[in-house]
This record gives sequence, structure tokens and C-alpha cells, in this order.
Amino acid sequence: MRKRKVTIEDIGARIGVHWSTVSRVLNPATRSMVSEKVGRRVLETAKKLGYTRNVLAVGLRDGRTYTVGIVIPDLTNPLFPPIVRAIERTLQAAGYIAILADTDNSSSNERAIIQTLVSRRVDGLILATALRKDELIESYINDQIPLVLVNRTIKNDSATAVINDDELGIKLAFEHLVTLGHRKIAYLGGPMGMSTSYARYQAFLAASRAHGIPINRALVVNAAALTEQSGRAAVDQILSQGASFTAVLAANDRLALGCYDALHEKDLHCPDDVSVTGFNDMPYVDRLTPPLTTLHVPHDEMGTMAASLLLHQLGTSKAAAKQVRLRPSLVIRGSTAPPPQKSKVSKRKKGSRSRRSLQS
Amino acid sequence: MRKRKVTIEDIGARIGVHWSTVSRVLNPATRSMVSEKVGRRVLETAKKLGYTRNVLAVGLRDGRTYTVGIVIPDLTNPLFPPIVRAIERTLQAAGYIAILADTDNSSSNERAIIQTLVSRRVDGLILATALRKDELIESYINDQIPLVLVNRTIKNDSATAVINDDELGIKLAFEHLVTLGHRKIAYLGGPMGMSTSYARYQAFLAASRAHGIPINRALVVNAAALTEQSGRAAVDQILSQGASFTAVLAANDRLALGCYDALHEKDLHCPDDVSVTGFNDMPYVDRLTPPLTTLHVPHDEMGTMAASLLLHQLGTSKAAAKQVRLRPSLVIRGSTAPPPQKSKVSKRKKGSRSRRSLQS
Repeated sequence: MRKRKVTIEDIGARIGVHWSTVSRVLNPATRSMVSEKVGRRVLETAKKLGYTRNVLAVGLRDGRTYTVGIVIPDLTNPLFPPIVRAIERTLQAAGYIAILADTDNSSSNERAIIQTLVSRRVDGLILATALRKDELIESYINDQIPLVLVNRTIKNDSATAVINDDELGIKLAFEHLVTLGHRKIAYLGGPMGMSTSYARYQAFLAASRAHGIPINRALVVNAAALTEQSGRAAVDQILSQGASFTAVLAANDRLALGCYDALHEKDLHCPDDVSVTGFNDMPYVDRLTPPLTTLHVPHDEMGTMAASLLLHQLGTSKAAAKQVRLRPSLVIRGSTAPPPQKSKVSKRKKGSRSRRSLQS
Repeated sequence: MRKRKVTIEDIGARIGVHWSTVSRVLNPATRSMVSEKVGRRVLETAKKLGYTRNVLAVGLRDGRTYTVGIVIPDLTNPLFPPIVRAIERTLQAAGYIAILADTDNSSSNERAIIQTLVSRRVDGLILATALRKDELIESYINDQIPLVLVNRTIKNDSATAVINDDELGIKLAFEHLVTLGHRKIAYLGGPMGMSTSYARYQAFLAASRAHGIPINRALVVNAAALTEQSGRAAVDQILSQGASFTAVLAANDRLALGCYDALHEKDLHCPDDVSVTGFNDMPYVDRLTPPLTTLHVPHDEMGTMAASLLLHQLGTSKAAAKQVRLRPSLVIRGSTAPPPQKSKVSKRKKGSRSRRSLQS
């Protein structure tokens, strides 16, 4: 953007080293090949002369752009900022920068965005948008585009992915409710096309079996979206069927918030009438009334790990597909308590057609 | 990333047009120079042949990279994701992409990050990190680097900026409290080095004067950071001085949440004992107990406008510095009510050295 650019030759000439040495120092990936003393002199001189590296030209020379595309479904979902921030920080320390793109939860946007990123010659991709069956991602893997999936993964484990241990999370929440004395536990899940929702639903079924609690289908809803509205509608649906329950295990915090809304509208009190658990530990759920018992997911670590795995792929010619599963931890707050002596929810049955909970 | 790349010459040859026509169609900025019919054929053929544009090469040819750097202080502050998302969406529609960088609230990080972005030859910058006195930003303006400030601006109005109408916001909150009957209004502000905090503080002083309410210095704290902890400490400080107040006007929502914490700890009830207002309308403040009365800032519009102004600068050789001020709106919720008949807060004075509120 300025007129006459300082070149690496200028820097080399000033301190009497070859331009290739200057180049090595200025590239974070090769800096360690040069002695610390020379490195320091090069950096000081570059700074003094006002040198800025033309990464575009460097990229055309070595076939790299030192950029990574990050694709997420919705930046305003509180899940993603900590992941993106940690990815960006890790890439930055390695001399890479992040191009961020938000698909607005649309597959067709996603396709166009990734085309653009590829046309920009990004060195790799980090995707938080995967579906369990995802032809787009499978085609990138076939094309050997370096990529790492984060938070969600695809069905056949052919991709490198950093995900949460969903089974463990649901198991912890379920055990917590059972330990408090709950046996009539409703489940609010998400779209089965997402690996997170699918794994959490399977884990709920497994936990029910493990505790000898038969599944009451009237108490299970897998919603079309992981939003407050869906959570509210799901609880309304369960209440309208008249089945009795004393706790709701929600597959994410936003569904749990929708559950709060539905209970509030029906004058049911959490946790006195119904206990509620969430998943993710979004910012500020500790400030709700009642503060939400939920699973804390290490989103920061998730982002750091995803960036590290991608950098590893970029450093070696062949990287084996690898799944990293991070462990969530249960944060017990005010939304869970022992079940009431006499459930108020069971009064909500509709005449003779109501199903009763299988547990009396 | 694949072996043999399809070129624009290949596409031209396939449909019998010159490669320069293909180039024009493939560049969103020049697409309108070609007839719609030819444009469609070029795009279809490009898609069929699996063409991806090498923007790196295009950039070296026309001196552009079609990238814009976005620099923000902290992506996990709920203020920024909607701004970033709107910027990104607007840039994308114009054929530009966004490189996101987070400074972690550090000026030295900021300097290094912007150096990196400039070395990547970004076409322009959108910065949410400005300080009122900001030599770094002034030097970029002198270097004629196209840039737009968002949310915060610098002191002398030499930069293009999209900001919130802070004066109006504070005026609305103040008038709301006065209309409810409050005269003893405490003020929680932020660092004076930020344009937002400075403007809100000045607006508080002006509103006090306009309503004939003398400023009680014991009720005014400008905190070092806009966080929950700072808000809590500020209210603790005001309470410890023993001055009486019935309302707290906070310069942002996070300070207001800290105020909730401090009041709760002292067994003071909001809004029965003390009314509280915030600023920003962050996600989920409508779900707190009580739901927070605050100023809704159109962050989405702020991002869209910032990107549009930058695109305008990139399209014309000279752009005049321009300030756009967006209007916030007051959202009245449960945290504000008429003052109590007998303030509980006034009991908190410390012996004879306590200052009393100037209003009895």
C-alpha cells in the first residue's frame, strides 16, 4: 500500500547476510534454522527499515498461502466464539492466519464458501459444519484437502476431528438425575443429521438401559433445531401427551432454556416440580433463575486442538485420520434437585387416553 | 491443491470467448460488464470443468487481494459476534473475504496483528479496537490504508467510523429513571480511553444537568474495565462510602450484571430497593432475574454499515472521513421500577464521615 517496498535483499545487504537467510528468519516455520543472534539482527533491521512481508509473493513461490479457512454454522451461537478464538490464536503463533466464514446454517452457502476458500488457495480447512452424512466433506477428503472437523464429525470416521465425548456427558447428567432419585426422565434432543445430537440420543438410550429404566417414547423428542423455540415446543408436546416426568435431560443449553420457558408458562417450578439439565455451559447460564446444571465443554481446548492437528497435517505429507474426544465435566447448579413427593406434572394427563409413565 | 488446474483460457476455449471475458465474469466486481447470457455460460462452464479461481494470481495482477482484515478486542465478548457476522456477510456478497484477528485486548498484539495483515496485502481494515488517542490508527490513516472503525472511534474524528449514538442512549436511560421518580442515580462507567465510555460519561453529566440534578461524586465510578468484576467492585465502593441512591445507570450490560451481584450480596433487591439499567442488550439479559432494562444497540446494522463504508472506500480513490451514528432504543424490562418509599441503601452510611445524597 506504500510506494517503494523494502525487500529482503535490502535487509540482507544492510547486515551482510544472504537474502535467503533473511527469508528463513522472516518465515516463522523456518526461523529455528537460523542462529538466534542472526535472527535477532534480521528482525531488528526489518523493523527499522519498515519491512512488511509480501505473503502473496511468498505463497506463489513455495505454493503456500499460510492461510486456513474456518467455516462455522453461526458465529452468534455462543458455542463458537471460544472455539474460533482458540483456533485463531494457535494458527497465529505458527505464522498462519484465519479466514472466517459463517454459513448461516445453510448447506448451499457452505458449498459456495468452501469453493471461495479453495479458490483463495487456503492451505487447509477447519469445519464446524459437518453433517453425519456429508458428501461435500467426503469429496474434500478424497481431493486430499487438509482438513479438520471440530465439534461435529461425519459418520464413517474418515476425517480428522476434535469432538466432545457426548456419551460421557449424557452419562454424567443421567447419573446425576438418577442419584437425586429421578426415574421419569424426559429427553430433549436435536436433529439426527448432526453427530452431536445423534451421539447424545444414543447415549440417553444407553444410560436408560444401564439404569434399568424402560424408555417411555412419550417422553422423548428429537427436535428439528437446537434452539430455545424448539425446546419450548418439545416440552409443550410432552406435557400435552400427559405423560408424567420429574426431570428433563436436554441435549444442549438452548433447548434447556426453552424448557424453562415452557415450564414457566404452565406454572411449573424448576427444580421443585421438574429438574432440568443442559449441555455446553454457555456464558451466563450460571446467572439464570435457577442457574442451569449443565455439562461444561472445553471449547477453548477444542479450538486449540483442531488448529494443532491441522498444522500437523500441513507439516507432514500424510496424516492419518485421527479422532480426539475431549471430556466434558458436570457443573451442578440450582436447576436440579430431588423429585417432588407428588409430581404436579402427572396431573396434566388428558382423560383415559393419557399414557402414564412406565415407572410408578 | 489438485494436480492440473483448469485455467480461464480453458473455459474461454470451450465456449469460444476470449479469456479476458471469462476473467471479467469470474470477478464479482466486473461481472456486470458482460452480458447476462455470456455470464451464465461462463459460470456454468467453469462449474462443469471444476474451475477454481486463483485469487492469489489475480491479486498480483490487479494489485488487489480481495481480503479485508477485521480486528476485534475479544470475540468472546457477546458484543462482537453479531458485528463480525454482518461485516463478513456484506463483504462476501461483494466478492471479498474477511480475515479475522482477535487482539485479546492488548495493544502490542494489535500492532503485531495489523503488521501481519498489512504484509498479507489486505485491501483494507475494519477495526473495533480503537482508543480515543490512538497513534497506531492515526499512522494507518496517514499511510492512506483504507480503514473503517466500528463501535469505537478516535478522538479527532479523522477516521471513517460507525458508532452508536451513546449520548442518545444515556439520555433515554436517564429520562426513564427520572420519569419513574429517581433522583439519586449512581453511575457505573468504563475506561476513559475508550470513546464509548468517554461519551457515555459525558452524556451522564449532561443528562444530570438537564434534569437539574447535581452530580454527587460519591455516586460516580469510571471502572478500569467493562466487566462483571469491575461492576461489582464499583458498586461495593459506592455502598462503602455510605451515599444514598435508588438507581444505578451502568454504561454497559456487563457492569450492570456486576451490579446485580453486589446488590444480591448485600441483600438489596432489584428493582424494589435499587433500579438498574444496562447498555447493549446482550443475548440472554432478558432471561436474568430481573430481566435487564437496557439499550438495544443495532450491532448487526453496525457491521453491515462498516463493511459498506469500507467497500465504498475501496471503490473510489478518495473517500472523505465519515461518521455514521446509529440510534439505540430503550428496552424496558423488570430491573427498573419507582424508587422505594424509604431507601434501604441510605442506611449504609458509615458514622459521621458518610456523605449523604445531595437530594433528600
